[in-house]
Amino acid sequence: MSTFENVTVTREANIYFDGKVTSRKVTFEDGSYKTLGIMMPGEYKFGTEKAELMEILAGQLRYRLDGDTDWTPITYGQSFNVPANSSFDIEITELVDYCCSYLD
Amino acid sequence: MSTFENVTVTREANIYFDGKVTSRKVTFEDGSYKTLGIMMPGEYKFGTEKAELMEILAGQLRYRLDGDTDWTPITYGQSFNVPANSSFDIEITELVDYCCSYLD
Repeated sequence: MSTFENVTVTREANIYFDGKVTSRKVTFEDGSYKTLGIMMPGEYKFGTEKAELMEILAGQLRYRLDGDTDWTPITYGQSFNVPANSSFDIEITELVDYCCSYLD
Repeated sequence: MSTFENVTVTREANIYFDGKVTSRKVTFEDGSYKTLGIMMPGEYKFGTEKAELMEILAGQLRYRLDGDTDWTPITYGQSFNVPANSSFDIEITELVDYCCSYLD
């Protein structure tokens, strides 16, 4: 287990896809923020505004960035980057606990 | 939306009931802590060690404390207390976002 210290947490969850994807926002002293979330098994499409670093804390999935033809499987302990103003498809094969960092 | 400030957040989620109930721990400067969680529709039983205050931030449920015969329906904006070293049944009728405070 690891922790984020001296942060601000938004109490209310972000709820997507009928609750199959949920997350909570964690804001750091420098104004940057991450979300900590859960994705239930299923297939989802997300758009990005900022670039994102998706770290997989538990579970398994495969993802496909906009423009890619192939899916890339990854598992807990691994991560992937998504460009700004883009999108990606994600298929959760085993419940995922994740940390998403929004990059400037 | 409201926030908890100057807190420590545990990065990894607590995952129960195959992920139908998940939560994240938020620890305050005084050492007290709360969990912020999501419960998908379904019926669950929980045990308590400390007394708990369950605040419902979104969704609908009914609960039955240990020893109660009747279920009590509540909805977002409402809360209920559970004694220490006890248990309660909970039936989620619409996805619940909650804040659980652990009381000394």
